[in-house]
Amino acid sequence: MVKKEEVKQEKDQKGITADKELSKSVHQSAKDQKGITADKDDFSEWFAELMIKADLADYTDVSGCIVFKPSSYEIWQKIQVLVDERFKKLGVRNSYFPLFIPEKYLNKEKEHVEGFSPEVAWVEKAGDTKLGERLAVRPTSETIMYPSYSKWIRSWRDLPLRYNQWNNVVRWEFKHPVPFFRTREFLWNELHTVCATEKESIAEGKMVIDAYNDVTENYMGLYGVYGRKTDREKFAGGVFSEKVHYIMANGKVLEGCPFHHDGQNFAKAYDIKFLDENGKEQYGWQNTYAISTRMLGVMFAIHSDEKGLIIPPKMALNSVVIVPILFENTKDKVLKVCDELVKELKSFNAFVDKRENISVGFKFNEWELKGMPIRIEIGPKDLEKNQVVVVRRDTFKKEFVKISDVKKFVEKSLDEIQRGLFVKSKEIFLSKLADANSLEELKKVIENKKVGLVPLCKQESCEEVLKAETKGAKALWIDNKKVKSEKCIICGKKADYFVYAGKSY
Amino acid sequence: MVKKEEVKQEKDQKGITADKELSKSVHQSAKDQKGITADKDDFSEWFAELMIKADLADYTDVSGCIVFKPSSYEIWQKIQVLVDERFKKLGVRNSYFPLFIPEKYLNKEKEHVEGFSPEVAWVEKAGDTKLGERLAVRPTSETIMYPSYSKWIRSWRDLPLRYNQWNNVVRWEFKHPVPFFRTREFLWNELHTVCATEKESIAEGKMVIDAYNDVTENYMGLYGVYGRKTDREKFAGGVFSEKVHYIMANGKVLEGCPFHHDGQNFAKAYDIKFLDENGKEQYGWQNTYAISTRMLGVMFAIHSDEKGLIIPPKMALNSVVIVPILFENTKDKVLKVCDELVKELKSFNAFVDKRENISVGFKFNEWELKGMPIRIEIGPKDLEKNQVVVVRRDTFKKEFVKISDVKKFVEKSLDEIQRGLFVKSKEIFLSKLADANSLEELKKVIENKKVGLVPLCKQESCEEVLKAETKGAKALWIDNKKVKSEKCIICGKKADYFVYAGKSY
Repeated sequence: MVKKEEVKQEKDQKGITADKELSKSVHQSAKDQKGITADKDDFSEWFAELMIKADLADYTDVSGCIVFKPSSYEIWQKIQVLVDERFKKLGVRNSYFPLFIPEKYLNKEKEHVEGFSPEVAWVEKAGDTKLGERLAVRPTSETIMYPSYSKWIRSWRDLPLRYNQWNNVVRWEFKHPVPFFRTREFLWNELHTVCATEKESIAEGKMVIDAYNDVTENYMGLYGVYGRKTDREKFAGGVFSEKVHYIMANGKVLEGCPFHHDGQNFAKAYDIKFLDENGKEQYGWQNTYAISTRMLGVMFAIHSDEKGLIIPPKMALNSVVIVPILFENTKDKVLKVCDELVKELKSFNAFVDKRENISVGFKFNEWELKGMPIRIEIGPKDLEKNQVVVVRRDTFKKEFVKISDVKKFVEKSLDEIQRGLFVKSKEIFLSKLADANSLEELKKVIENKKVGLVPLCKQESCEEVLKAETKGAKALWIDNKKVKSEKCIICGKKADYFVYAGKSY
Repeated sequence: MVKKEEVKQEKDQKGITADKELSKSVHQSAKDQKGITADKDDFSEWFAELMIKADLADYTDVSGCIVFKPSSYEIWQKIQVLVDERFKKLGVRNSYFPLFIPEKYLNKEKEHVEGFSPEVAWVEKAGDTKLGERLAVRPTSETIMYPSYSKWIRSWRDLPLRYNQWNNVVRWEFKHPVPFFRTREFLWNELHTVCATEKESIAEGKMVIDAYNDVTENYMGLYGVYGRKTDREKFAGGVFSEKVHYIMANGKVLEGCPFHHDGQNFAKAYDIKFLDENGKEQYGWQNTYAISTRMLGVMFAIHSDEKGLIIPPKMALNSVVIVPILFENTKDKVLKVCDELVKELKSFNAFVDKRENISVGFKFNEWELKGMPIRIEIGPKDLEKNQVVVVRRDTFKKEFVKISDVKKFVEKSLDEIQRGLFVKSKEIFLSKLADANSLEELKKVIENKKVGLVPLCKQESCEEVLKAETKGAKALWIDNKKVKSEKCIICGKKADYFVYAGKSY
């Protein structure tokens, strides 16, 4: 992550706070909500509306920070459980280090501190007492964890050491904040490992990436591509960074889980040494990995539509809502069937929406907005035929299903929704890639809301020109395709690699 | 929690940092570790040594903050899961609110801000930019959550609202820090509820307390007594507070989960109103509940002994370690049996300690220090008799058990350890209570390392005299015993209640 944005004056920054009016108006007119009125192409506006109407999050008076409401936070907890299960198999242990980092610690790795210091929040006072040394609110925890690593690691027997944290971090960015994607405080895991050799360290990268990918692909339904970043885009203080990339229907790229290989850079700055099997002192090799609440944003953004949220069933808190259609004289009978059905569908966390004084139509809208994967409607006429109506959130396909077949049908449908969302995200991704052999071609590709594959050289200045010329597109990831005699589309000298370039959030 | 301690100069505060030498020396001489050398009566020293030697936590250069190492943090995660399961049944939803609280929010409830402001850590700068308004690092989240509650709650249909957070909070206390018990940053859950009526609000208290008690008694093995605090000791801004109290063998009281009933105090300050079923506007009734990493400290402190940590099996990460006794010519045979046994004992997370170059005696010591509930020793002589040696951590009782009986025996033993620890904590608790009918008697009770039941009046000044006269004992909880004609042991006027008074951490 590059930290070279200009620092603007705090007073110019309204950011997320400015959208509070939207939050208020939505809360005051909940009954009028019918899908998302903003166009998905206008991503910021569409996503902000989705966030509020689907009850995922809300604004606060803390500029750039949001409340994660239960509908999003409890999905985050599911992600934590899934990742923890996979990490456990890799020998990862969970721990917790202090929120605060003494300034002298932060300053030890030069590139790292330069990268992060423009956006560090500082504590200088407690109560009325000025602190002896000011403390950084962690933007990431390398600089507080590694002094401990230095103390704990003595021998090759202590390696690999794989300590993870689930915590909150603060980066006081001055770019326009976008809920989930760019908030000044966010939640994540940060896994910091030490291996005895470079080879082992890089091999570990693949294992951890596979663990994340299992969750993001098979549970969150997201097709993405892991790729190495250019040096300009790598982690401050690392040797190289790799991230997974997702593409939305509007051609904008969303970045997911990063893997940063730090080589021995931090080990040297923080004195992380061990005696190898031959009794020789060596510096450790280090990696860092993360999944953050940004991935919630990616999942919401990729799958959802103009009717509201769509959530893959495996990540949904409830997969089925049963909406009874009630008339005075058949009410008891209908509710009885609902209650029986809810028991049968317990494994999908089904529930009955029994709220009174709210119309059936309003309920349908609400559960569509909130992304309930399957809605079952039960009315007296259906019961006469011993059937119910089942509606899928992804396709809105409506089917009459015999009551005795409902469980099987729901199971099959949820499976189809889950797989369908992944397939759709993959199709969109692949349809957004295009070749571009010149800056002019790249500009056209980007105007057409796609991501261009271009030959480029390693000079940072070329990446800066690319960004300026394309009004904000950047080098996203290096492709595996090898360069032969291609020229850099900016300076015309020999290209070093092919990169995908496009606009991102 | 009373927040009336004097604020001392930061430069006088070494606190936890000062003990770093201990941490270093322990890490450098791991092989010398044989139980805890400090006396359990000297609690601070004993507990600090336990913490380091059992690898539960470590010091950092951030004064008053610790690293929660995996051996303690992963137990904290177990507590989270257990509490979440119980909360779910009560309709509690998990959420996440910003770490930072704008100063104007913090200032809305007068008593609350007076209670917390002496220990608030302030952020005034991000990067080089001075913020428009300074931000408090949350000491507790009422003041950031309730403005949102005010916006979200409209009608009686929105109630009860029960939002919980699992997060980190910072209270820059200037008292001597004790790992787990009093650290400047700690982890907790904070559950903040709004009910429609006072009656419902107070009834909710019992439900949540029962949920916590189920975890602390039946899993953490701790006998404690819930009791109401005097007004002097209640939560700043609340109507009354209740906490659970534990007593150690040295007569010191440890405080556990709090329940704060806030009445309508915060609702009025933060404008949390709803329309009741008759269409009339009402203020909500509020409660707050928490379990914190302090409870890890309570569990470690109550159960452990001079040999090191003791953990109730239900909270242990692994309940059984198998230590093979290896000789060159029988090694393969012994390890084969170990591997078979570990599979059989999978449900107890058993594992084999196969480390080489480390003596069996060292391993025994290490697992005793780290509180492994059961150790199984397997050597060639045992195998000849088709048996193994099973040693319990709580009693050190050593038994020869036929291999075919091991699983059953382990299951029974773990159950006995679990129940035994609870019974022991209860016996100690009850043996530490004593009646005291005068200040002189109370002084003697406290000299004898017990907790005295005394008649007291409601004047805060009497509590202050009590504290001064007893060198630091305080009114801990109000007993159910009703006063008749008893006089306050301090001022001699009519007593208002019986309270338990003693020293606490």
